[in-house]
Amino acid sequence: MPTIAILAGKGDLPLVAAKAARNRGYRVVVVGVLGEVAPALAQTAHASYPMPLGQWQLIIDVLKKEKVQDAYLVGGVSKGLLFGRLQLDERTQRLLAGLGEKNDNAVIEAFVNDLAQEGITVRPQTDLMEEIMPGPGVLTSRQPTGRNWSDIRYGWRIAKAIAGLDIGQTVVVKEGAILAVEAIDGTDATISRGGRLAQGGGVVVKVAKPAQDLRFDLPTIGLGTLETAVKAGIEAIAMEANKTLVMDKDALIQRADEVGVALVLVDERDLSPTCEQSSGGSGRGRDN
Amino acid sequence: MPTIAILAGKGDLPLVAAKAARNRGYRVVVVGVLGEVAPALAQTAHASYPMPLGQWQLIIDVLKKEKVQDAYLVGGVSKGLLFGRLQLDERTQRLLAGLGEKNDNAVIEAFVNDLAQEGITVRPQTDLMEEIMPGPGVLTSRQPTGRNWSDIRYGWRIAKAIAGLDIGQTVVVKEGAILAVEAIDGTDATISRGGRLAQGGGVVVKVAKPAQDLRFDLPTIGLGTLETAVKAGIEAIAMEANKTLVMDKDALIQRADEVGVALVLVDERDLSPTCEQSSGGSGRGRDN
Repeated sequence: MPTIAILAGKGDLPLVAAKAARNRGYRVVVVGVLGEVAPALAQTAHASYPMPLGQWQLIIDVLKKEKVQDAYLVGGVSKGLLFGRLQLDERTQRLLAGLGEKNDNAVIEAFVNDLAQEGITVRPQTDLMEEIMPGPGVLTSRQPTGRNWSDIRYGWRIAKAIAGLDIGQTVVVKEGAILAVEAIDGTDATISRGGRLAQGGGVVVKVAKPAQDLRFDLPTIGLGTLETAVKAGIEAIAMEANKTLVMDKDALIQRADEVGVALVLVDERDLSPTCEQSSGGSGRGRDN
Repeated sequence: MPTIAILAGKGDLPLVAAKAARNRGYRVVVVGVLGEVAPALAQTAHASYPMPLGQWQLIIDVLKKEKVQDAYLVGGVSKGLLFGRLQLDERTQRLLAGLGEKNDNAVIEAFVNDLAQEGITVRPQTDLMEEIMPGPGVLTSRQPTGRNWSDIRYGWRIAKAIAGLDIGQTVVVKEGAILAVEAIDGTDATISRGGRLAQGGGVVVKVAKPAQDLRFDLPTIGLGTLETAVKAGIEAIAMEANKTLVMDKDALIQRADEVGVALVLVDERDLSPTCEQSSGGSGRGRDN
């Protein structure tokens, strides 16, 4: 029975991954990089270790002791953590000191590359979680309005550009105006801020990066984000088909239909022709 | 004595422009598009009309009655205004209905094009305000630190990209991480948000758009923005040389030196070589 490791951050995703790995016949070692392992996750794993991310050398030692060759990075880890009061061991400090721009990819890649030097390969999350990454379509019985679709098209283009710069992956749009752009504050704060500015009728667009690394940082949606969107008066949430982890899908759809929020999984190819046309700079603002 | 019109939004810029126009020998008509004209501005102008922007036909009528051929758009007008409870006459509604994406440029261009149809030309703000657009250099005795300069370089690249998408022109950076990106919320809200996330040590970068239209929407800094930055614990504010309107320059520098905030006007060409090098995707995160 080969051993895999799950380096587990926040949320329920690590548990989903651990169960999927067991079903596939792996021996599962969980390292809780926030210094804790949730009880259900510890029960699912064959072995589990709560370890703060800042003690990177200890984490490596555990992985080697457990003879791990393949690892998965699953669940959110706020980059803010590394800039906060977390105690950083020498190895972590060295990794961070080597970085110029501390954007998400650069920070995660530093850890991934360091694992590679120890002979540990970080594998794509999609290996374990294909079944919670739905294809294109509207999930809810509430459909986006025509106005929502225009905002999704415009928001998509902007969100992809922002994601390409590795700033964030979420925007809030209303009636052709970008109300909020995600930076280090994260998806939920961005949705709340955009919703406040929209005063109802906003649309959330959350995308994968143009060159999304499938090993980490896939866009995710769950009940928490939906509730944030409901409070913010959001009308529709658009995400990328086949690249978004949809947590608790049935409960999510049921709740979205209760509150009248449209959930859409979008295939970029379905948007792009119209998107090209509406992004032209000339001829706008005339009578027609 | 030729007549020019100043369509005046918020702040002190319209007064600066009106004085400059008088000094150049023009007859100055001020239209306060927020429905009011500040007393000092009314005194400086030869004629002044408080007119809400939503009554666009009345504004056009006044400009024609006053035989205006050249106009300047000066001072902020929140786009949010047009999506709020403002009463819009038929002409304004028609202009806005013709728009797809309601980004800043699209909205302003619609009004500028409509003026052109009436034979009124909108002129570059720089015609009147060259003297408050300083060239490159550090204005304060407090110099940016080396770390600040790295953040300015990185923030510049991101701010230019954001500005190119016509989302906003301001970012807050700290230690190579983008903390906040301006959208419809505006510069001051972005600075406050970024500062909260930075918990001290953030850097503000505010740029002109890559293809900045000199007729409107030039980046501006004044005492209000500085005070916002001080409250947010910002260490340095970088702006674009020769393209930023610096209000109350002497008082601004004095106050910035009192509170220890570095004010820098940057010529893009001075940043770009290093910027190119540090933006490469490979070779980071290694020991060196």
